[in-house]
Amino acid sequence: MENQAIQSVILDDENSTLVILDQTLLPNEKIFLRLTSQNQIWEAIYSLRVRGAPAIGIAAGYGAYLGTKESKAETYDELYEDFKKVKEYLASSRPTAVNLFWALDRMETRILKEKGKTPVEVKNALKDEAETIREEDAKVCETIGEYALSLLKDGMGILTHCNAGAIATAKYGTALAPIYLGKERGVNFKVYADETRPLLQGARLTAWELKEAGVDVALICDNMASIVMKEGKIGAVLVGCDRVAANGDTANKIGTSGVAILAKHYGIPFYVCAPLSTIDLKCAHGDDIHIELRPDEEVTSKWYEKPMAPQGVKVYNPCFDVTDNKLISAIITEKGIAYPPYNESLSKLF
Amino acid sequence: MENQAIQSVILDDENSTLVILDQTLLPNEKIFLRLTSQNQIWEAIYSLRVRGAPAIGIAAGYGAYLGTKESKAETYDELYEDFKKVKEYLASSRPTAVNLFWALDRMETRILKEKGKTPVEVKNALKDEAETIREEDAKVCETIGEYALSLLKDGMGILTHCNAGAIATAKYGTALAPIYLGKERGVNFKVYADETRPLLQGARLTAWELKEAGVDVALICDNMASIVMKEGKIGAVLVGCDRVAANGDTANKIGTSGVAILAKHYGIPFYVCAPLSTIDLKCAHGDDIHIELRPDEEVTSKWYEKPMAPQGVKVYNPCFDVTDNKLISAIITEKGIAYPPYNESLSKLF
Repeated sequence: MENQAIQSVILDDENSTLVILDQTLLPNEKIFLRLTSQNQIWEAIYSLRVRGAPAIGIAAGYGAYLGTKESKAETYDELYEDFKKVKEYLASSRPTAVNLFWALDRMETRILKEKGKTPVEVKNALKDEAETIREEDAKVCETIGEYALSLLKDGMGILTHCNAGAIATAKYGTALAPIYLGKERGVNFKVYADETRPLLQGARLTAWELKEAGVDVALICDNMASIVMKEGKIGAVLVGCDRVAANGDTANKIGTSGVAILAKHYGIPFYVCAPLSTIDLKCAHGDDIHIELRPDEEVTSKWYEKPMAPQGVKVYNPCFDVTDNKLISAIITEKGIAYPPYNESLSKLF
Repeated sequence: MENQAIQSVILDDENSTLVILDQTLLPNEKIFLRLTSQNQIWEAIYSLRVRGAPAIGIAAGYGAYLGTKESKAETYDELYEDFKKVKEYLASSRPTAVNLFWALDRMETRILKEKGKTPVEVKNALKDEAETIREEDAKVCETIGEYALSLLKDGMGILTHCNAGAIATAKYGTALAPIYLGKERGVNFKVYADETRPLLQGARLTAWELKEAGVDVALICDNMASIVMKEGKIGAVLVGCDRVAANGDTANKIGTSGVAILAKHYGIPFYVCAPLSTIDLKCAHGDDIHIELRPDEEVTSKWYEKPMAPQGVKVYNPCFDVTDNKLISAIITEKGIAYPPYNESLSKLF
């Protein structure tokens, strides 16, 4: 695994074991769990051992396969009944994760296509579908990486926020994909990772996975983005996204909009890496995106030995923000690079 | 102390006891230490129980007085010898704190003025000088607060960064002074305090002292400054400073320059509160200000139960940054408000 993008969810042992990087132990321990039962996979999703929308979907697909594989059913109909129990069970692991349901529904669509076949044939089909989910995600990431790489130069300093990396996806990640692809080809970047308060995904995950892959990465606090830009250390900003509106307004981890404003001020290109699945043409603009507020404790006491804010102090803790399309130099998808005006360029991708 | 700016360094018990708020215990405990010996005061400065340049200077002044008060000297010359020992001892408590030396030198200037007087008279003079240091600082803060208040409106949302508050000074603080003065007069603000990574002065100190005084304060992570501005919550930004160059470029806690860029983007006034002692006309512009780098551990592991970044990861940890004068709406001093162009307006203040 040295000097390569980590694959955090893969099938092993002649298709009988799901190997998952336990992300709850990062950055202090690198432990791969070897899961064989649906219960173990349920627990891994529930306990956030696997995280990141694509990675959760992939794990759920494999879970549906491995859970159904345990079935002793002798007919298609019996096996389908067992599949539905597995699906329902896995769906309860993280009821707010859209990608979990998307992947489980896709597995069901596949099993319905195999109607009438033998249990062995159906189980193989489920394995293929799960593998396809993973491979398609890896391909999306790789293609985004190719397009992004075309915008970057060897030796460039790159700033990133939160974790849009390999461990959240099948491979490569989105915003980090060009960095891994470049590394494979001897094109190297100097990455600055915002630690990304309050949940520290940049410190715990991005800095970890890049360092693990041998990428030159430096960790900074979120409030140091301005000084590294001012000092000429940054040639481009690369971020992922949760949702892109039809006009290009982009919801992503809290702090992204601030980084975009700084980039604009310093004349640095700001790129959003967005799989088509995150682009929502039915959402006209960013004002339509609801901003979730998270618990105060994430800011006042999480991770700490003791609380670092006065007891009972008010806290404002929105978990993402919306970056205005005017601040975004380009939106990079697996179907190509969209430039402003985004209403036009994004709709052409579909 | 309810609903008033906290005084973190005062003389009590008929001038025999220095009462110091132990800032190392904030925000979890509010403990006032009662110090009577030079050794106790040395320890309080050394262990950062008292912090903030003005507060350290005040504590040193009182320390020089209380230390010399213990002397059994029967003549002026003997007492002056004892004073010099106290001064040298206290000066060793925090050898990089400029204000410590400034206050101790001022105490020496005073004792030299009292040459030939009785030990009792000289001790009283030292007490007066220490009191004067504190009173002058309180007056500077109060006057800055008055000027700043003239720029603000009742009910306004104010964003601040780091701690330029009461506990770092004799009273009121600099950037927080208008908030306390307003409170005394029924003019209320809604304050948003950046937590200010990595040392969390905003969370531990600013949020604490404002809440303690009954001010409406909400804590945010540094990367949330953009969203609170975008949502229209902020009418003005108020920050303190470490050093202001002749052209108005301002060095302050890391992250200040980023907040200033955001404020400019959103059309929000950005005010620097600067005692004249921080304005350095011999420093032509911000490029001449050296940026200190601090230990990696402040970012990777300080405050945490266990490290939150991968072991051995590179860290970039500058402890302040320079805000370009073009981003600063006004610099508020005890001699009045300076507006651009600062080369002109600042030099007029002296």
